[in-house]
Amino acid sequence: MSLRIGVLGGGQLGRMMALAGYPLNLSFSFFDRASDCPSAALGPRFGDDTDSAESLQAFIDSADVFTYEFENIPTAWVNTIAAQKPVFPSVKSLAISQNRLNEKKLFAELNIPSARFAAIEAADDLKQAIQALGLPLVIKTVTDGYDGKGQFLLRSEDQLSECWNALGAQVPLIAEEFIQFKRELSIIAVRGQQGDTRFYPLAENHHHRGILSHSIVPAPNLDENTQLMAERYISSVLHEMNHVGVLTLELFETRHGLLANETAPRVHNSGHWSIEGAHCSQFENHVRAVAGLPLGSTRAEKPSAMLNIIGRHPNSHEILRVTDTHLHLYGKTERENRKLGHITVIADSYAELNMRISRLADALPNPMALHLSR
Amino acid sequence: MSLRIGVLGGGQLGRMMALAGYPLNLSFSFFDRASDCPSAALGPRFGDDTDSAESLQAFIDSADVFTYEFENIPTAWVNTIAAQKPVFPSVKSLAISQNRLNEKKLFAELNIPSARFAAIEAADDLKQAIQALGLPLVIKTVTDGYDGKGQFLLRSEDQLSECWNALGAQVPLIAEEFIQFKRELSIIAVRGQQGDTRFYPLAENHHHRGILSHSIVPAPNLDENTQLMAERYISSVLHEMNHVGVLTLELFETRHGLLANETAPRVHNSGHWSIEGAHCSQFENHVRAVAGLPLGSTRAEKPSAMLNIIGRHPNSHEILRVTDTHLHLYGKTERENRKLGHITVIADSYAELNMRISRLADALPNPMALHLSR
Repeated sequence: MSLRIGVLGGGQLGRMMALAGYPLNLSFSFFDRASDCPSAALGPRFGDDTDSAESLQAFIDSADVFTYEFENIPTAWVNTIAAQKPVFPSVKSLAISQNRLNEKKLFAELNIPSARFAAIEAADDLKQAIQALGLPLVIKTVTDGYDGKGQFLLRSEDQLSECWNALGAQVPLIAEEFIQFKRELSIIAVRGQQGDTRFYPLAENHHHRGILSHSIVPAPNLDENTQLMAERYISSVLHEMNHVGVLTLELFETRHGLLANETAPRVHNSGHWSIEGAHCSQFENHVRAVAGLPLGSTRAEKPSAMLNIIGRHPNSHEILRVTDTHLHLYGKTERENRKLGHITVIADSYAELNMRISRLADALPNPMALHLSR
Repeated sequence: MSLRIGVLGGGQLGRMMALAGYPLNLSFSFFDRASDCPSAALGPRFGDDTDSAESLQAFIDSADVFTYEFENIPTAWVNTIAAQKPVFPSVKSLAISQNRLNEKKLFAELNIPSARFAAIEAADDLKQAIQALGLPLVIKTVTDGYDGKGQFLLRSEDQLSECWNALGAQVPLIAEEFIQFKRELSIIAVRGQQGDTRFYPLAENHHHRGILSHSIVPAPNLDENTQLMAERYISSVLHEMNHVGVLTLELFETRHGLLANETAPRVHNSGHWSIEGAHCSQFENHVRAVAGLPLGSTRAEKPSAMLNIIGRHPNSHEILRVTDTHLHLYGKTERENRKLGHITVIADSYAELNMRISRLADALPNPMALHLSR
């Protein structure tokens, strides 16, 4: 009677999908090595230390339709599942999003402005990239980068061997021109199985040492054209991928307009505000799309902020004492740079929102970039 | 690290408590006979067909702090738990709310207007009640009544033996004067462990054959005085009970003002709108109170309606196609008069809300009292 969604990964994103899906009579199973993963309490978990074919098959047998909460998984897994049962988003979305070169080529094909880039197929290509694109350059691994990992900011030719070694002394890499941006924005959209698409308002994202510190939504001081332009870009990507589910597009706002940075074929940290801040959250809309249900409204009525809890837990009392805050903890143990939870706070105005953010920053053991905003 | 709340009962109310509590890093266990109860997927379940002392003790051992989702449970269970671990609300709230005579006496003590009543300690007391209070009378069992069960509307002396037999030919009963009310309202409040109290806006409740069909919140055409009066009444009750957690007070709106009808020491069907319609839902506020956390805002920004799904499941697609609806299914099988789920719908105005309610009534196989509103 209840449709079961199998989620590749049992982290906080899977956990929040499940919490959003149970009211729709959906149930969940997870594929994750860790028996204490954040989703463990919310459905049966499959997976062993070797990611064996048997454990993957048991997971496939456990559910009716599949999705993933993390793009750095083998496409082979998704192909194995897809040979037997529906998977959303499809392997095409995954194969593009998990590879920076594929992403950049797609942006170029779709005429979406993006940083100029060069593929690095051998160590010597780095010098050619400097000649073609100038300095500084951002050199990145093509796969497996997240939270600022797998990147090197190359400021001079003297750093070439340092850069090469820092990134594992291997190819492929990608060289991108260094973008002087005003701020980072992200747009999150959801596309249903019939191609119907909805867009959340742009988020303004603040990072601290490569990790998302906090997001403000809708991004303040935004002209309407920017939101529409972002919607146009992500629409092209969604359509080209024939994507089903939530997709995130990270963007740089520059003096010359928006530049696309990268895609994530999933619910995104910069969309966690939507649980309380939008009519229908990114998690509910993702599981609605995967289950083939009509999508919900992505409208936000008021400004909200999402603050990440990193490394150390705050005192829950101090957080919840701030007006209109919601606390989301992921059931993880403390570890440096680990995302342990997030806080959403809503207000009637940006001024009020900033006051509440300021109070929350005081209550957070690791306020990340929040202290910079003041 | 995670505080575990033990819930007596594993129905939809426990399920929605758990869904609200997981983000706060709370975990849950349940005491329920049914292995397929709505909460079963959300935490370990204890309980057997005989409600044995061993199964209750295993449940007590499983959690740190306790609550209940249903008032028709033996106070002995709560006393057994309370001798070992904290229980909120306390047995005092339970003992009053599960007994109509105790409720009425409390209302009288606290000078809260209510229907005149008489205790029926023997069959002959019914005649005396007619003489003292007049006809018609509502004769009710003192305990175990819900969804209109355990009640008889006595219109004439001729019905005395019919009434006596219908209510099980046993005492104690309670005779209440028949109230000509304009509508039924309910107020839900939450009280924290420090005595801090918050009130949700009054709900207007519509019944069909004794079962709640739908609620509109805030109750339309309400003068401010009515809300304040309801808050004063429920405050007195909360304070007298030293209640911790959510409490519901059902009220009649009459030509002569509000009359208290009954209390429920728990989250209530007429408060399900609060999941999407209030800043902090009755479920989250209840678990916050039980866990000793600060309470969240009970404010509602827009009118909303809660429609019960009774007996038969609707087509989820048709429901979710209506703008700003949220579907909550409890994972139950279909059965006549059974609460299978509810729908919340939000709008910018009551006029728009009514149009959406009307569309939802068309999509519901059993629209209950909804067809009467049109």
